Amino acid sequence: MAKPAPVSPFAVPLPEVPEVPGVRFATAEAGIRYKGRTDLMLCTLSPGTTVGGVLTRSKTRSAPVDWCALGLREGHARALVVNSGNANAFTGKKGLETVVITADAAAAAVGCTPREVFIASTGVIGEPLEPGKFVHLLAQLAGEARPNTWHEAARAVMTTDTFAKLATRTADIDGHPVVINGFCKGAGMIQPDMATMLCFIFTDAAIDAPALQEMVAASADQTFNCVTIDGDTSTSDTLLVFATGEAEQRGAPRIADATDPRVADFAAALQDLMRELAILVAKDGEGITKFVTIEVEGADSDLAARRIGLAIGNSPLVKTAIAGGDANWGRVVMAVGKSGEEADRDKLAIRFGDILVASEGERAPSYVEEEVAAYMRAPEITLRVDLGIGDGRATVWTCDLTHGYIDINADYRS
Amino acid sequence: MAKPAPVSPFAVPLPEVPEVPGVRFATAEAGIRYKGRTDLMLCTLSPGTTVGGVLTRSKTRSAPVDWCALGLREGHARALVVNSGNANAFTGKKGLETVVITADAAAAAVGCTPREVFIASTGVIGEPLEPGKFVHLLAQLAGEARPNTWHEAARAVMTTDTFAKLATRTADIDGHPVVINGFCKGAGMIQPDMATMLCFIFTDAAIDAPALQEMVAASADQTFNCVTIDGDTSTSDTLLVFATGEAEQRGAPRIADATDPRVADFAAALQDLMRELAILVAKDGEGITKFVTIEVEGADSDLAARRIGLAIGNSPLVKTAIAGGDANWGRVVMAVGKSGEEADRDKLAIRFGDILVASEGERAPSYVEEEVAAYMRAPEITLRVDLGIGDGRATVWTCDLTHGYIDINADYRS
Repeated sequence: MAKPAPVSPFAVPLPEVPEVPGVRFATAEAGIRYKGRTDLMLCTLSPGTTVGGVLTRSKTRSAPVDWCALGLREGHARALVVNSGNANAFTGKKGLETVVITADAAAAAVGCTPREVFIASTGVIGEPLEPGKFVHLLAQLAGEARPNTWHEAARAVMTTDTFAKLATRTADIDGHPVVINGFCKGAGMIQPDMATMLCFIFTDAAIDAPALQEMVAASADQTFNCVTIDGDTSTSDTLLVFATGEAEQRGAPRIADATDPRVADFAAALQDLMRELAILVAKDGEGITKFVTIEVEGADSDLAARRIGLAIGNSPLVKTAIAGGDANWGRVVMAVGKSGEEADRDKLAIRFGDILVASEGERAPSYVEEEVAAYMRAPEITLRVDLGIGDGRATVWTCDLTHGYIDINADYRS
Repeated sequence: MAKPAPVSPFAVPLPEVPEVPGVRFATAEAGIRYKGRTDLMLCTLSPGTTVGGVLTRSKTRSAPVDWCALGLREGHARALVVNSGNANAFTGKKGLETVVITADAAAAAVGCTPREVFIASTGVIGEPLEPGKFVHLLAQLAGEARPNTWHEAARAVMTTDTFAKLATRTADIDGHPVVINGFCKGAGMIQPDMATMLCFIFTDAAIDAPALQEMVAASADQTFNCVTIDGDTSTSDTLLVFATGEAEQRGAPRIADATDPRVADFAAALQDLMRELAILVAKDGEGITKFVTIEVEGADSDLAARRIGLAIGNSPLVKTAIAGGDANWGRVVMAVGKSGEEADRDKLAIRFGDILVASEGERAPSYVEEEVAAYMRAPEITLRVDLGIGDGRATVWTCDLTHGYIDINADYRS
């Protein structure tokens, strides 16, 4: 089966982003799996950098995820090593050895402890990742690392992504501006359970690790945990936020508590940036032709609303209908019904965009097929579901299911 | 998008089946949605027929399912009316009215109470089903009903099915032979939650309704509840088993208790027939090119094993890999990990057919790519997963995910 590589119709150009003091990148073509493109990235972080993060809840998570979990307990970071092409997942003792060898090499190159090295790997599962392929490059990369190479860093972590995903925000902490930059990658095996496959965010704000952790976890729940491409949860989902604290030198306060009112603007900017990146992941879903926002309200709880949104967003029948431009709201009813969450058929209201298509247990009297069909021709579709039984709400982002998805994933060992 | 209508490569010819004393069928072309084919079926059942059944657990179930639930409480049946082309689901008060009008008309035609009439509808969701389109035909059908028209009955309930699904068994009750015939339909929106979309089974055995209900529910759990095409649970899943009791006239005993040893052979034959029909549903999955059996063992419990099997069977990445002939066992690892059930990465063993591909947390040392690739070219694939942590086991049946599925379901309002 031929593998098409068209670019997502929702691709956006890489934005120019400011430096984040204390953060430097270098990339290399290690040839781990891909040829003729970068597949290794080293990020160096200034002394005192704190880190928070969330990791996949998969029971078969990868060796690098196990490693990051240990590092997150300490909350200190000096380096991040990311490779694409091989996930180092389900690789047994060898997988752990590779992680330890990588951390040792990066620690020596950067001048820190191995526990301050964070590692992420993305690509094929079950193939041993030979450290000999890339650890000898780390010392050189540490010397080459520069603060203005965000585009190169974002590109080096791509797998089946058709465009690199980078975003920036500024926030105010007690009158002092700080920068937040982040990048991430998709584009299949995406229904993050605590984080997207790989997402790295950097700021010069000075925030203690526990406070940072609290903000990251809360924002992940509202952003990456609301994205689904195919309902498949990766073994490698990793979201890390690094705070170098360099802003402290410009007089910004160090934040010790996530509820400190001085960090509210930062927390909002962080969540806003995470939402932008999460949406970019959905907009590069494998084979995407339509971007879909699912807004659920009136559910039993926010969690119930999210589960209903994901049941709709993961339904192959809903996704293929949208691909075909079919306002098949009956399939939305079906997906609500199968979600396992509380629902009352006769209180359910469904809108496509602003058009009411179903209410009170049946098709809306005002329903006009042509009107809805016209709406479905838009590239971005919003499905609105009101359960009518509570105050729970959630927004879920997804894409349609097309021949492109089949082409990409039925290809031999993609 | 063109709608291909190739026949499933796993289609089997309709078997010749014996009569079931007390059961008669008639069919008609009512033109409810389809033209030039039968879409209405009336089955008449002799006085004294008992009924057991299981229905979808969907929270948005259809009006006919609501109706059948009431009838199952009583356990007596004299008629079954099935239409295809319209599911009468999410049709509000009109949906209930249609069901009541249908039951009244069938009751008058057959000479029974409306509560003894069972109704099932399959097809598009959310479109009002006008009773005027078909209830006037019921009296004539009651007069025309014949005992030897099983093929016609099985065909009348099809929607996107590419072949009709009919099976037969005989069983021995205390030295007296009884017949069990059944037919069912798929072929999308299939991950039954208590039953497949529509399945009707008939026997001349004499079994009280509570005992029949107990046997049906137990067997559904091991058969139809282990099938998935696309993970989407229908609003209309209905499995009904009718026992006319005609065998009593030949001296067979009436069974009042599901644990009566005299009914053990019958119960085994019933489950065996249900398994055959469930497998036929999977073998007619929309767009199928490969039939997949997933055998899970060593799980925490039988239920955990089934959930792991369904997580594998519903993974778009596993299903597309199989479509592409790719022994991508890493995606099986991923699916186990995301199932939410207990798993220990380092105790997991995965086999494709008899070939061990992964064990002890990594690729098996004996793994030879070509050997597995050759196995994947077979039309029927078995994935074996041993969790290595308990005694739970389950078998799940599914199919691959192909361009055919997209074609069928992205078509306008299929």
